[in-house]
Amino acid sequence: MDFKQGAAIGIPYFTAYRALMHSARVKAGESVLVHGASGGVGLAACQIARAHGLKVLGTAGTEEGQNIVLKNGAHQAFNHREVNYVDKIKKYVGEKGIDVVIEMLANVNLSKDLSLLSCGGRVIIVGSRGPIEIVPRETMVKESSIIGVSLYSSTKEEFQQYAAALHAGMEIGWLKPVIGSQYPLEKVAQAHENIIYGSGTTGKMILLLQ
Amino acid sequence: MDFKQGAAIGIPYFTAYRALMHSARVKAGESVLVHGASGGVGLAACQIARAHGLKVLGTAGTEEGQNIVLKNGAHQAFNHREVNYVDKIKKYVGEKGIDVVIEMLANVNLSKDLSLLSCGGRVIIVGSRGPIEIVPRETMVKESSIIGVSLYSSTKEEFQQYAAALHAGMEIGWLKPVIGSQYPLEKVAQAHENIIYGSGTTGKMILLLQ
Repeated sequence: MDFKQGAAIGIPYFTAYRALMHSARVKAGESVLVHGASGGVGLAACQIARAHGLKVLGTAGTEEGQNIVLKNGAHQAFNHREVNYVDKIKKYVGEKGIDVVIEMLANVNLSKDLSLLSCGGRVIIVGSRGPIEIVPRETMVKESSIIGVSLYSSTKEEFQQYAAALHAGMEIGWLKPVIGSQYPLEKVAQAHENIIYGSGTTGKMILLLQ
Repeated sequence: MDFKQGAAIGIPYFTAYRALMHSARVKAGESVLVHGASGGVGLAACQIARAHGLKVLGTAGTEEGQNIVLKNGAHQAFNHREVNYVDKIKKYVGEKGIDVVIEMLANVNLSKDLSLLSCGGRVIIVGSRGPIEIVPRETMVKESSIIGVSLYSSTKEEFQQYAAALHAGMEIGWLKPVIGSQYPLEKVAQAHENIIYGSGTTGKMILLLQ
């Protein structure tokens, strides 16, 4: 693994690992929808979930993104820019629904997520950029949960646990960071603009020192 | 305990027990806000939480309701019809926030609840009658959870567990059903209307066969 790939491990893989293991407490055999799967955290979530025996569904906003998602652990990819993609997911998973959603943009998707969940299902909120209207009763019928995650709430012991698990993933080979756009350090302001206003990510954005 | 009190045990106490123990996984020493505490489930939640070593706060919409809440396990009662009652709760609990909210009307209160929670706090949704706008990011910062509960999702083993715990509460004496309004069975339609459109409950509504 080179330095660029190394730079793409820290935040995405530790966040995805905490979201899946600590927050969602996933079990092998469960299904997970990575809602926004072609970015850094999304691809990490797909790789980790696939390596732990989950059925992995991912969404992306472009065909290129869908292909990267499929190459990195997802059994099936959907395009979240298609009007009827939620119906396609429902048809694919059947009546039982999805056990876990890893949600990168809750202010857009949370209400859809609740409709996709199985009984006892969990939506893990990794990202959100504003308010959204939901129908709380939807959580009652299926006894589902909405759970926020923030990497920096981890204890030192948890960080060590995640590091050990991810190190094993590197040794075995399922952990393979995907590099997206690259910027020289002096263009960091532009990088921030593009990650917020751009769309259709394919991997982890990194900054280069030279 | 007479038959009227017996009629007031089933749904409220089993629901409150499942919400606190199964869904919120409360621990002694934690704080709980029963948001809508003067009804059947609310008073049951106050009694159960107090008996298990929690710090209990309850809200009601009338002074009479607040007094009943205080008589049934709450350390402190607030009036949710006062404009600034959320600020009063915040002042009472301090910076740490509330560990668990048992929520009877999520479509009105869920957003306030999120602002009241401690790190790792949980809102348990027992009732809701419509949509509400929330800011999902609020769950991320504190890694809080929104969890729906429905009594009839319980397994047979869980029902037996709850029955055993509540039976012990009757023997010891902390389980004391509070009877609210009483209707003869032939006025059941009126009873339904009043429970939906009325306000300021004080105990469990029951129907009488004669």
